[in-house]
Order: sequence, then structure tokens, then C-alpha cells
Amino acid sequence: MLGLMQNWPMTVDRILDHAKAWHGDREIVSRSVEGPIVRSNWAEVHARAKRLSNALKGLGVQVGDRIGTLAWNTGRHIEAWYGIMGIGAVCHTLNPRLFAEQLCYIINHAEDRIIFTDLTFVPILAENRAKMPCVEHIVVMTDREGMKGVNLPGALCFEDLVDGASADCAWGGFDENTASSLCYTSGTTGNPKGVLYSHRSNFLHTLVTLGVDVMGLSARDTVLPVVPMFHANAWGLAFSCAAAGCKMVMPGQKLDGPSVHELLESEGVTFSAAVPTVWLGLLQHLRATGGKLSTLKRVVIGGSAVPEAIVRGFRDEHGVDVTHAWGMTEMSPLGTLSAPNAKVAAMSAEDQLRYKLKQGRPPVGVDMKLEDDAGKRIAHDGATFGRLMVKGPFIVGSYFKGEGGQILDDEGFFDTGDVATIDGDGYMQITDRAKDVIKSGGEWISTIEIENIAVGHPTAANAAVIGAYHPKWDERPVLLVQLKPGETATKDDYLKFLDGKIAKWWTPDDVVFVENIPLGATGKIDKKLIREQMKDYVLPTAQVAEKA
Amino acid sequence: MLGLMQNWPMTVDRILDHAKAWHGDREIVSRSVEGPIVRSNWAEVHARAKRLSNALKGLGVQVGDRIGTLAWNTGRHIEAWYGIMGIGAVCHTLNPRLFAEQLCYIINHAEDRIIFTDLTFVPILAENRAKMPCVEHIVVMTDREGMKGVNLPGALCFEDLVDGASADCAWGGFDENTASSLCYTSGTTGNPKGVLYSHRSNFLHTLVTLGVDVMGLSARDTVLPVVPMFHANAWGLAFSCAAAGCKMVMPGQKLDGPSVHELLESEGVTFSAAVPTVWLGLLQHLRATGGKLSTLKRVVIGGSAVPEAIVRGFRDEHGVDVTHAWGMTEMSPLGTLSAPNAKVAAMSAEDQLRYKLKQGRPPVGVDMKLEDDAGKRIAHDGATFGRLMVKGPFIVGSYFKGEGGQILDDEGFFDTGDVATIDGDGYMQITDRAKDVIKSGGEWISTIEIENIAVGHPTAANAAVIGAYHPKWDERPVLLVQLKPGETATKDDYLKFLDGKIAKWWTPDDVVFVENIPLGATGKIDKKLIREQMKDYVLPTAQVAEKA
Repeated sequence: MLGLMQNWPMTVDRILDHAKAWHGDREIVSRSVEGPIVRSNWAEVHARAKRLSNALKGLGVQVGDRIGTLAWNTGRHIEAWYGIMGIGAVCHTLNPRLFAEQLCYIINHAEDRIIFTDLTFVPILAENRAKMPCVEHIVVMTDREGMKGVNLPGALCFEDLVDGASADCAWGGFDENTASSLCYTSGTTGNPKGVLYSHRSNFLHTLVTLGVDVMGLSARDTVLPVVPMFHANAWGLAFSCAAAGCKMVMPGQKLDGPSVHELLESEGVTFSAAVPTVWLGLLQHLRATGGKLSTLKRVVIGGSAVPEAIVRGFRDEHGVDVTHAWGMTEMSPLGTLSAPNAKVAAMSAEDQLRYKLKQGRPPVGVDMKLEDDAGKRIAHDGATFGRLMVKGPFIVGSYFKGEGGQILDDEGFFDTGDVATIDGDGYMQITDRAKDVIKSGGEWISTIEIENIAVGHPTAANAAVIGAYHPKWDERPVLLVQLKPGETATKDDYLKFLDGKIAKWWTPDDVVFVENIPLGATGKIDKKLIREQMKDYVLPTAQVAEKA
Repeated sequence: MLGLMQNWPMTVDRILDHAKAWHGDREIVSRSVEGPIVRSNWAEVHARAKRLSNALKGLGVQVGDRIGTLAWNTGRHIEAWYGIMGIGAVCHTLNPRLFAEQLCYIINHAEDRIIFTDLTFVPILAENRAKMPCVEHIVVMTDREGMKGVNLPGALCFEDLVDGASADCAWGGFDENTASSLCYTSGTTGNPKGVLYSHRSNFLHTLVTLGVDVMGLSARDTVLPVVPMFHANAWGLAFSCAAAGCKMVMPGQKLDGPSVHELLESEGVTFSAAVPTVWLGLLQHLRATGGKLSTLKRVVIGGSAVPEAIVRGFRDEHGVDVTHAWGMTEMSPLGTLSAPNAKVAAMSAEDQLRYKLKQGRPPVGVDMKLEDDAGKRIAHDGATFGRLMVKGPFIVGSYFKGEGGQILDDEGFFDTGDVATIDGDGYMQITDRAKDVIKSGGEWISTIEIENIAVGHPTAANAAVIGAYHPKWDERPVLLVQLKPGETATKDDYLKFLDGKIAKWWTPDDVVFVENIPLGATGKIDKKLIREQMKDYVLPTAQVAEKA
């Protein structure tokens, strides 16, 4: 027996319709790529997105066609976003930080028919135009004045397209499982793989993120998404702000401390979201200039683990609350947030901090389990760690074009590639990447946990732990230390420093002092490169064991 | 092209699974029908609901079978709720305030195979047992001790069923559009009609209600739902509290001021929801006893328009924020809430109050339009009023067994039967019931608006406005006034009092002083009865017009 409620497919055009109908005059303020601050609102964004839909139809775009965007966070990007999805085309956000070769690979793999680009990225597209034969048109997100400097034959002008089309366009009307958007994972191994979201998955992610313990946005919020729309959907904010009726402040390409601070203050921002490095930059700027945060109440931080200093800096210097978030492109992207539950909320500020540094609890709609190598569920005791597996209606089922094959386990869970603990209060904490974790005698050792302690040694500039071959234990940990300039230390200094802070059997078999610990593009330690550099290294304990 | 996200049907058992996994030790505290306070938690409720599912299977219950509950808000009712829905049976909440005849009609119309009942309602079921032939079993929600006083042959004991069944039971696994629950509307005309909710509609309603501007529950909240589960699903709280990880405080059958106050204080309640009469009772009790509300932060009030005195009482005497809500059984039930948007939040407390008295704004997922009699959309100017029509994934599409036939208009909207305005900020305000509104010369006159002003006259105990036949204008308003004991007044006193406060042409053609203005079961003016009592009344202006 089926229920008798209305058939109302969850298509994302309804989110913008809602914003127009009930929050039409709430502003969308952008720092344009051309420079000036541009003011619009949800009603105007809605009308312009409809015009853009008609312009796309005029260019022959059909349901299912992929349309790329290579763009910063601006009002125009939001118009393109909804204009594309509203007619059932697929909005494919491209990450401009990729190498040209990867960018071309992704564009061709996705078979993008049109690419919307900011002025910033015209040169890279012009240079590589011949390597993307599927692309029929490039639309430059500027006006006629801005087009004057564009050196790209055949390029179309965004504002001309908008001006030349009618605002009368029917959106939606298709199955809610229709693809709405596409985002490629950066992929540390192999080629990038595409995550193909559906209208349903984006709509559900939006509803979930509106919850108090998730993003918790209200019609009173003014939101500055520093996190880019090309990076895991700006954590859903282009949808959730429209759904809640927030004012949006779009920072364009200027994500440095002073520029972000200027917008936070001039536009009365109450909520923002970004990766840790942005916030470090902001806090440093505020300390240097004595700047204040007079309206900001809450920041959500994700992308990599939040350093304690950021939580303290916001809390103690500005009275701003930090929510640690964790997710993946494959999860739309939000997976967990560190919002306090009743027990944590009753603790002292210092005790609460321990929970703020964990990645947090999943909202309803995100199922999680921890498994050992044998696929057995492990205890939620905050100490035992295992592979973190996730399941839910806005989590990837398979990659675009079947890349990577079957990616779910027998119970339908997706392997995040992270290793984590979950404590008795339901707080998840990432302890390592599965590919970095050291497997010693069948047990796991968290490299991140040892690194976090070792880097606290007064002589350490940075520290990294990798596994090295051992004939008896398979792998044993080696600690690499980059000393601060002018400092000296011995292996024993570090082993003593670790003593009592980690399990005895986690103690590294060796400490190697290095000139430099290599970092990747996002500032994380590049373990792949370290392992390559250390491929000829042999453990002293391994030599002993071999001899024995 | 379809998206490639996971297939994860939205069935409500997943909500309780979530509560168990992530908030297992959050308490469910009940004032039992037997008397004592009973303490449980989400993990225990989950296990007991599973046992109950197996017990139901043992009684032959299949997917789609209707199972009635005639019960107060208690932990056992929540266990029955999820135990029934988890296996695809339909939880049919019965309203014990109905006359026995209506109750039997509804049970038979729904074809309930089993009825769960509290001890309170055993007598009415015993008396009418022969009139509900479809009912195979009656389960009394008590233990063996409680069964001793039960005089109902064949009655089953709830605790025996739970004890006798295994907790190992698979839930869900069916289409998300499967029926999950059934609730009959009180139906002022004709027989009550059933609204058959689906797992999908209940799940989506839950996600929407978690939004900050809707119910806004977090894992830090302790929630006391005074609004009964048999009355429009307790406004979704049995789902949303589990989804958010709230502590629940279930008041059982004692909904008087002192009993509610005792639980609010002893259990540290932060959030509650009820109809205005409950809050009037509580506020009166607090004034009489000097009682305090030391943990309560927010109350949601709906069911009928919120009197200003309640908002002021909570605000000024207790610092508790009131959110006015409007909805219908047909809407799962939430339609609008009066949460402030940015513009309203910036106003003075007194100016904000005007918005708090409106029914509020719809969340995403609820579409609304206002129409005139000709089906034309009317302006959102806060003054023009029209029929309020609604559309969305948790709004009724048709009634159970097709009662009432086709109930949606060409655009798929359901007619709420209410007449309302919507202002430029998106705040909806009910001005009348469609059947009460007076149609005078093709224009509409709001009876509620005139009543609200007239009742402010110092001599008025109550006031009602109805339409009376007029040969020229079709209908003209008549004001009925019930004077306070010992007061006297004239027709002119009242017409002068209204002068300048309403449009000239809204001025009643007559004022009739009556002994008593009849009220219905919910405390609202019974206009149907007034119209019946006044059926021989002839307007003085009508007589003049007829003569002319």
C-alpha cells in the first residue's frame, strides 16, 4: 500500500523558486572578477538564471548535456549553476587549480559541450583550446566591456546571452534522479574520477545541511562561502543559502586575509566556511592590524583537520564559534560536524575543545561504520580505529562512466579511504589515511597521531611518520623530523619525548633527521613523495631481524 | 542521464536507527498512564520497538495492514509507532476526544486489524467492541500488573508482547512511497477523511522541520511534546527528536498547567509545543504560584491563532521565545512558522510582535499561493486576502479510499479551506475560514478581523460575525456580541467602536446581543451552530432593500 501524498519531485530549481518567492529581496553581493562590488538579490538571480537557461537552449543544450564552469564564487556563477541545472543539463564545476593537462582530461572525459569561465582563466583555456575538441562554446562571465580584453576566438559574452534571452522558461519537470551536477575528485592515484550528483541527492543534502547541528542557516544569516563552488560544491552553500533565505557574500578570487576581512565587516557576515589555511591567514591579519570581527558568529572549517590554535584564536580573540566539519566530494560533501551534543555542551570550554578538534557526528541521512581489515565492525570506544565506511542518499554509488568499477561493499557502504575512531558519544575522529596507516604484526598504527605529538617537540619544524619494511612485523614506523633552523637533537631525544604519550609498540624503530619534509599543493605532508624518497631506506631493526 | 548516487530509500525506521547509533543514551522520560515517571532511552526504545515488530508479525501483521493506536504521548506509544511502521504496517493514530460513534466509524473505515490502547481508553473500547468487527486484537499498553484491572476479554498485554519477542527484526527494505501512517481529519462537514502518509513524506517532513527557522531542534534540546501524537503527528516530534538526538519528555495524560510545569522543571525541558489553551493554563498556574521556567527557551504554538497575551506572557514574565506555527493534518502537519527573517529580527521587540502574531513563512518544500474566487493569483501585499492553496511532498494528494474525490487544482495545489493574506516579507496570516468569509457584492469580508476588534470593546465577553442574506449584496455582516456579566451596550456603541478600524463597507449591517456565543470542542467559535441558530434572522437592511 502506497501513501497518498503529493508527487513533488525534488529538483533543485524549486530551491531557487523558493528563494525568489519568499526571500526575493535578500541580497547576493559579489566581489566581481572585474573588481567592483556588485549587488543583486534572489529575485534577480532567479530571473537571470532563467534567461541563461533559454540562452543555453538556444545553443542547443539538451537534458543530460555537461556544461563546465571554471569560475570563482560570484553571483554570475550561481546564475550559471541554476540556469544549467534548471533545464536538466549537468553543471560540471572545474577546479582551476589543476594542471592544464588534468583540466583537459576532465573536460574531455566529461564531454563538456560549453564552458563558462571567468576572465581569470581565459588564458589557460585559450592556450589549451585545441585539446578540448568536445567543447563547442566558451562563455566568458563578463560584460561587453570585459570582453574587450578577451583573446579567445568565438568566445561568447555572459551578459549578452542573459540580455538576449527571455526570462520565461520552464524548469524541472523531470525525474528527481536526473543528474544535476558533476565534480571530479582530485584523485591521488590514477586519473580523477567524476561524482555525478542527482537533483534528489542535492536536494536532500540541502535539507540535511539546514539542520541546527549541521550548517544551521536561518533567514537571518549573512553567509560568505570562501570555500569555492568548484571545491565539493562549496559545501552545499549555493543551495542551502537559497533554501534558508540567507544573504550571500561572494568573495570572487580574493581569498587572502585582508580581502576576506573587508567583506566580513562591510557586509555584516554572520557565517562563513573555509579550509584552515584561509582562517590562519585571516587570524594573522587581524593580529597584525588589530582588526575586529564585529558581526561574525560562526565559522565552519573543513578540508583538513582543524588546528587547535584556530579554534582558540576565534574563540578567545573574537568570540566566534568554530564548527569542525568533515566530508568528501563523494559525499556531496558533508559527512560529520562537531556540533556539541547535550553532554559536551555541559562541559567546560577547555573540555569542549577536545570535541571541537574531532571531526564530529553524522546527521540523519549519513550512516557510518568502522571496520577492521577483515571487514568486521569494530567498537565505538574512541580508541580502536578502523576503515571509515559511509552510506546514504547523497553519497556516491558509482563514479561517472563506471571508473573504478564497483565501489560499494556488500552492505552498500562506500570506503572513504580514511581511518578513524568513533567515541562513545558518537564523535568520529580521523586518525589516518588508509594508505598511510602502518600495519605492524596485523595491528594498525596511526601515523598522524605520532606526528602530532612529535611536532610538539621544541626543536621540530615538522614531522612525518611512514612505515618501513620489517621481515617479522611487515611494517614498522619510522619518524622523519625536520628541525627548526639552528636546532639540534638526537634520536633518543625524540624517542624519550614520545615515551608515555603513545603505546610502547607504536614507538618508531628509527628517527631520521631530514632537510625538508615535502608538502603537497593543499599544505598536507606529501607521503607519497616521502615514500619514494625513502625507497632504498632499510630499518636498522630489520637488518638485525634478518641476521637473527 | 541519471545521477550516480546511492539508492537509499527514505524509510522512517532509519530515523530510529540513527537515534540508536548516535544518541543511544539520550533519555525518553514518560509520565506513565499508570502514574510513575518511567525512564528509557533511544537505544532501549529501538530494541523494544524491534521486539514489538516481531510480536506484530507473530499476530499475522503484513505490509500495508492498518494498526490503530488510541494513546497518550508516552515512550510506549513511540515504541508502537516505530514498531508498526518499521515492518511496513500503517500506524493509525486515533483521537480519543472523538465521540464513540466517530471512533468506530474511523476504525472500520481504516479497517484496523489491531488497536494499541492506553488503560484510559479500555472502557470505551470495551463498550464498543462489537461495533468494530475488523479489529482482531486489542493490545493494552501496560504490564501484567496493569492488566489486572482490564475488563476486556482477549486483550493482549503490551509488555508481554515485548518480552516474548526477539529484538532481531529487519526493518525497511520497501519502496519509500509505502504508506507509513494514517490520521483522520476532524472534518467539520461530512465524515472524517483519512490522510495516508508515506515513509517518504514523513522522512522529508522530518528533515524540513529540523531547519533553524522551523522546529530548529538540536542534540542539546530536551523536548516536551504536549501536542498529542494523535493530533497531526505531534507536529512531527516523534520523528524529529529521534533524528536530532533530543531528550524527549512525554507527558502522558496530564496536560494541565501544574503537571506540565512540574515536568518542564524536573526534566530540564528547553523546547515545547502545544495549542494555545495549554499555554494559557500554564501561564495562569505560574502567575498563581509564582512559578518559574528555569530551562525552557522556546515554545511552538499552533492549532489556532496565538493570542498576543501568550506571546507577551512568555516573553516578559519568563524570557521564553514563542514561535507561531500553522499547519494541517493534510500537511504532515507543518506549513508555516513565524521565525523572524533578517528584516524582522532588526526591529524592536514590539514591532517583532506583529510578525509573531502572523502564521509565518513556509520552509522550502512548501509551496503556497493565494487565489481569488476566479482562481486568479492575488498580490502579496499583506492586505488582499484569498484562498490559501498549498503544494509539496508532504501535503495530501488524495484522501484514503478516494474520499472527497479529486482534491488538487490544475497546478497540483490543495485548498486549505483557509483565507489568508501574505505580506511583502512573505509572512502569511490567516484571516478566515473560507466557509466563514462573507461575500458582499463580489468582495470578501474577513469575519475574524472584525471579531478581533469587536472583542476589544470593554463590554464584550465574546464576539462573532456571520454573513446574512442580502438581496442586493448577496451577504452582509452581522455582529453578534456576548456582553460581560452586568454590562450594557447599544448597537451604536459597537459600530462607533469599529469606525475607522475597518473599511467602511465592512461595517456590520446589524449588531445582535446574545446570551452566549457557542464554542466548539477546541475552544473556537462554533459558526456552524450560530448560523443554524440564526437561520430565521432577517437583516433590517435586507427588509429595506426588498421593499425598495
